[in-house]
Amino acid sequence: MKKWTAVIIGILFISHLRAGDGYQLWLRYNAIDNAGLLQQYKQQISGIVCSNTTNTSQAANKELVTGLAGLLAKKIPIKSDVNTGSLVAGTPDQYPFIRSLIADTTFSRLGSEGFIIRITATPQHKKITLITANTDAGILYGVFHFLRLLQTHQSIDKLSITSVPRIKLRMLNHWDNLNRTVERGYAGCSIWDWQRLPGFIDQRYIDYARANASIGINGTVLTNVNANAVVLTEPWLKKVAALADVFRTYHIKVYLTARFSAPVEMGGLKTADPLDPAVRNWWKQKVDEIYTYIPDFGGFLVKANSEGQPGPQNYGRTHADGANMLADALAPHHGIVMWRAFVYSSETPEDRFKQAYNEFKPLDGKFRENVLVQVKNGPIDFQPREPFHPLFGAMPQTPLMMEFQLTQEYLGFATHLVFLAPLFKEVLSANTYSKNNSSVAQIVDGSADDHALSGMAGVSNIGSDLNWTGHPFGQANWYALGRLAWNHDLTSAQIANEWIRQTYTNQQPFVDSVQTIMLASREITVDYMTPLGLHHIMGYGHHYGPAPWYNKAPRADWNPVYFHKADSAGIGFNRTATGSNALAQYQPAVREQFENMNSCPENYLLWFHHVPWSFKMKSGRTLWEEMCYKYNTGVDSVRWMQRTWGHLKKYIDEERFKEVQMLLNIQEQEAVWWRNACLSYFQTFSGKPIPSNYEQPDHTLQYYEALSFPYAPGN
Amino acid sequence: MKKWTAVIIGILFISHLRAGDGYQLWLRYNAIDNAGLLQQYKQQISGIVCSNTTNTSQAANKELVTGLAGLLAKKIPIKSDVNTGSLVAGTPDQYPFIRSLIADTTFSRLGSEGFIIRITATPQHKKITLITANTDAGILYGVFHFLRLLQTHQSIDKLSITSVPRIKLRMLNHWDNLNRTVERGYAGCSIWDWQRLPGFIDQRYIDYARANASIGINGTVLTNVNANAVVLTEPWLKKVAALADVFRTYHIKVYLTARFSAPVEMGGLKTADPLDPAVRNWWKQKVDEIYTYIPDFGGFLVKANSEGQPGPQNYGRTHADGANMLADALAPHHGIVMWRAFVYSSETPEDRFKQAYNEFKPLDGKFRENVLVQVKNGPIDFQPREPFHPLFGAMPQTPLMMEFQLTQEYLGFATHLVFLAPLFKEVLSANTYSKNNSSVAQIVDGSADDHALSGMAGVSNIGSDLNWTGHPFGQANWYALGRLAWNHDLTSAQIANEWIRQTYTNQQPFVDSVQTIMLASREITVDYMTPLGLHHIMGYGHHYGPAPWYNKAPRADWNPVYFHKADSAGIGFNRTATGSNALAQYQPAVREQFENMNSCPENYLLWFHHVPWSFKMKSGRTLWEEMCYKYNTGVDSVRWMQRTWGHLKKYIDEERFKEVQMLLNIQEQEAVWWRNACLSYFQTFSGKPIPSNYEQPDHTLQYYEALSFPYAPGN
Repeated sequence: MKKWTAVIIGILFISHLRAGDGYQLWLRYNAIDNAGLLQQYKQQISGIVCSNTTNTSQAANKELVTGLAGLLAKKIPIKSDVNTGSLVAGTPDQYPFIRSLIADTTFSRLGSEGFIIRITATPQHKKITLITANTDAGILYGVFHFLRLLQTHQSIDKLSITSVPRIKLRMLNHWDNLNRTVERGYAGCSIWDWQRLPGFIDQRYIDYARANASIGINGTVLTNVNANAVVLTEPWLKKVAALADVFRTYHIKVYLTARFSAPVEMGGLKTADPLDPAVRNWWKQKVDEIYTYIPDFGGFLVKANSEGQPGPQNYGRTHADGANMLADALAPHHGIVMWRAFVYSSETPEDRFKQAYNEFKPLDGKFRENVLVQVKNGPIDFQPREPFHPLFGAMPQTPLMMEFQLTQEYLGFATHLVFLAPLFKEVLSANTYSKNNSSVAQIVDGSADDHALSGMAGVSNIGSDLNWTGHPFGQANWYALGRLAWNHDLTSAQIANEWIRQTYTNQQPFVDSVQTIMLASREITVDYMTPLGLHHIMGYGHHYGPAPWYNKAPRADWNPVYFHKADSAGIGFNRTATGSNALAQYQPAVREQFENMNSCPENYLLWFHHVPWSFKMKSGRTLWEEMCYKYNTGVDSVRWMQRTWGHLKKYIDEERFKEVQMLLNIQEQEAVWWRNACLSYFQTFSGKPIPSNYEQPDHTLQYYEALSFPYAPGN
Repeated sequence: MKKWTAVIIGILFISHLRAGDGYQLWLRYNAIDNAGLLQQYKQQISGIVCSNTTNTSQAANKELVTGLAGLLAKKIPIKSDVNTGSLVAGTPDQYPFIRSLIADTTFSRLGSEGFIIRITATPQHKKITLITANTDAGILYGVFHFLRLLQTHQSIDKLSITSVPRIKLRMLNHWDNLNRTVERGYAGCSIWDWQRLPGFIDQRYIDYARANASIGINGTVLTNVNANAVVLTEPWLKKVAALADVFRTYHIKVYLTARFSAPVEMGGLKTADPLDPAVRNWWKQKVDEIYTYIPDFGGFLVKANSEGQPGPQNYGRTHADGANMLADALAPHHGIVMWRAFVYSSETPEDRFKQAYNEFKPLDGKFRENVLVQVKNGPIDFQPREPFHPLFGAMPQTPLMMEFQLTQEYLGFATHLVFLAPLFKEVLSANTYSKNNSSVAQIVDGSADDHALSGMAGVSNIGSDLNWTGHPFGQANWYALGRLAWNHDLTSAQIANEWIRQTYTNQQPFVDSVQTIMLASREITVDYMTPLGLHHIMGYGHHYGPAPWYNKAPRADWNPVYFHKADSAGIGFNRTATGSNALAQYQPAVREQFENMNSCPENYLLWFHHVPWSFKMKSGRTLWEEMCYKYNTGVDSVRWMQRTWGHLKKYIDEERFKEVQMLLNIQEQEAVWWRNACLSYFQTFSGKPIPSNYEQPDHTLQYYEALSFPYAPGN
């Protein structure tokens, strides 16, 4: 026995060496360290019956075997007879006895992706844990859900779960270029190793697909929205097809970005006019060709007439004309178009806030059935806090897809711990006051307007770093996107809780502390970056760090000064009727929330009002004092995160402890930088001192303004 | 017992999940699977006594503990008394009893890096395994050597090893840019995460240092030879310092590339003339500043007046003037300059082969004592086969550093299995016929000319890929560089053998087969790419695949046609006295080997001669027939590698088996492509058919010529 103990210690020691690299994400499957629970689980799961006839069911089977072997520290035998397998995973077609247990009507509600997990019994009265669904994909999702229950130490002896996704298209958008750089990527380079595709299938592709399937993501756009037509050439389509072959097993469809001018660039046509028959034919041929390589190709994501990208407006056509042309080419193959609403004209001097609405609202009802309009969560660009986008609720005849950003372009890159579920939830739960007070979530999931299509996308934070996302807590944002796209009723706390347990440990003090940190983290970031409704005051181009003073951009609305409008009278962007009147784009009830400076929620104040420095806030402080308070609170709160994390060393491996510790140290330094730079700058307008009870800036404003960051990533 | 077995199986299962990713390189420390051997090892190593007082000794200690726990599947206790520790690792200063066992004269021969491993006894007659050295660095090297003996299942009961490095500077050169792209990198992006330095220390930095220390590498140039002055600014020097802090523990010094025009670009000077006092002073100040951040900074690697890089010739000065200026700034801090001889003028129409020699040979004796001239192994540019560079042996008063290329710029990128030790050895063992018939190795290690400095560098093949080098066998080239820099007498077979055992398995059939593949692989690549002395006929710019027809480059000597000179009369570059007379740069005895077409070794034939298509080869075939034979032999041999690998499935984990299988499939396709494209093209000159017993090209020459590779990596 002593000998065996030694061997185990040796092996554990070695396993431990690799404990910390984060590559396994939330799929760690470490042995359950609660002896009682382990015993219960092992009693309940003594054998596995799982179909093995398709690639997807094989994947489900393999995941079950692997996951349980790890979690239960025991290889659970595969059985062929359901009466000897205590865990049965399969469809009624595979195991007909299931029909006698679960009504057809129940199955019909599951659709093609839902699943049931239930404690039940075979006709021979053997108690079983059943995972069932209409499809192998549903089984795969059920298997991952079941493993999650074990990973998070849930009781499984009375399970009766029915789970159906709320949103149909649950997607990642990779802004990955063909040269493996990633626009707004902070985690190394693209994981798509185009050079060695299609012949070399990196294990990462498989693990990427597993991770996505485990949280319900069923689509991935491989390429940057600033698109490159080269990906539509034959050699590259073969590379894409190789990825699609890997992902298909995990019920993930592949999508590409379509460069609108491809017919000119590749096809040698004189125009890309979407109403030109030759252009329409070129796309039809191209799409047909794509489907010869990828029979279940998902479709196109398109950024057109935005930030210099070509589009239908180059030819006097509308976004609908452009989208419909592609939609017509895709329709025979059941492909879709996701047409982005992130547009702002290079000529219009109109408030950038208003432009997407102005361009798209009139097009409602003019899109084909296989088109979704993909709308960023807010009207500007993935700021730490934005009001929900006014298009939500304004285009009832069009399915609007939500675009969130996982990669932290404006939120501290891969260095700041910012859990984004609270941001996502804030937007999703916002009341649009359109149609029966629909929330944004109800618009997006299609329920408000009874759309057949619905979608939610996250702009990926994934790269070649060992731990995929650079910051280990970036993984939680990828995780949250998938979980919320499946079920937007989940709370941020639930998501944080299960992610922590799967990724780190189930030890309660650790879970509690880290959950508290995560739930607070986004508001903390708002405080030290852009409190009170400030927005887009980051460094020019790379968006790294503070640069509220910047005013040299080639267009006005790329300048921070455009967004904060600080002057000696006050600060903020008047978007009321006396200003740009962007508020008029919202329903009256929303408008009312925001239009009065005195009643506008203070966390949105400077989004909508130019507010005097001496304005009295609810706290009794003046606006200037409140701003000083908020920036300092942000810094203090990062220090609180540092202290809290500092107490958690004993619960996890040293490597992962240190990693977050180092990152929090950087976050603290950068929070101080944000505070000092912004207050030093805004002070030149407020004319007031920073109250002496706060830390004073340790450098001059000139120092902060002179900082430069060549090679800041993601640019 | 059954329960324990289950636990072990479970744990092993999980460990196995990560068995295949290659991150651990050759430092896997898997449990010894030979029970008898394991027993012997455990008997001999029952406790560890190892000093722990410095960072480096702590690292040695930790490596011993970790390595032995893995290899022996048992945690070996740390002891403080040498009489109870059966393995003692330390210097005589740490454990004075060692002086009674080993003579001072022996220690003095070890220098600052050598080590001794010996079975001996304490004064109290306790048998111990002793690892000793003059320094902690020597101990660290000894520890890695000892662990390697166990990893490779060597007998350790009669050890008596004394090991001293033959070459002083054992270096990696990273051609890594500050934006994390890697010039000629095929394994993802740079592992230097500049954005998060200095605050975030990636575990990869530590594991990189461990891997290097384990093979004796003691220096690393972090930045591309096509240099960027930004790395010399304060924020970046702080980032470099953070890396230096990590690497110092592992006895690795950090070096940077110096952009020659930095005084102009950064310093605002009007000139970078190395004789200008203001310029000299600027560098002195800059170097002094660097040493405030990095007290043991190694020095500079410089590419000047080559391929567009600025240099002293811009100001009418010599390479020696430039190198000496930097050397003077570095000398007070004991820093060095590595000045690259890879130069070819953009104006001179001279054979590119000759230019480095022409520029550098006259400068012999003019360099400061802390300058090495770094010379590529051959006169052109890292071809599959080159004659040794004529500078070796031609500059006796100057230490010449060897520059090999690990990254496979001209050798199939990260897709072809090419073990480079035979290439390195071929060069190192070449007889320069200078000074007592010195081999290139004797020139490089300084023994021929009694130089205090000596160096060998490998241009790194390391990137962000999980397995570091893209192709898993790329690791073997990194490994070989380190091992040969330590001891160039090692054979390629020895190196391959120990690498295979450490990286994959000790199972003899696997070791034998893979060793055979590795040793044959380089010659196979020569056969299907550039047989018979062909060179530099790769794709323009990216160097991917064959493009012997290419003739559009902005300068003649970037065109394949410049190098092969095929015409209806024959093929090859006449470098004899009737041609460019490059052969005159070698010693007469070398010249004699090559200058006669009839006696020139056939594997160098087209390097030196323009040979008629009907020329009779030793085989009796004509040159054209021989070329067809060679290209086909290359392809057939790749197929042999495929078959051989195909039989090895049972010896290793599936992931690593499949990975090489996929890569060999690509290599086979590309070998066929090389053969078909080259023979189709050269046939237009030879006018002869490809003998019908060979596979015929499956495409037209036009097809091959039309292939294009946008976004081929590394460019």
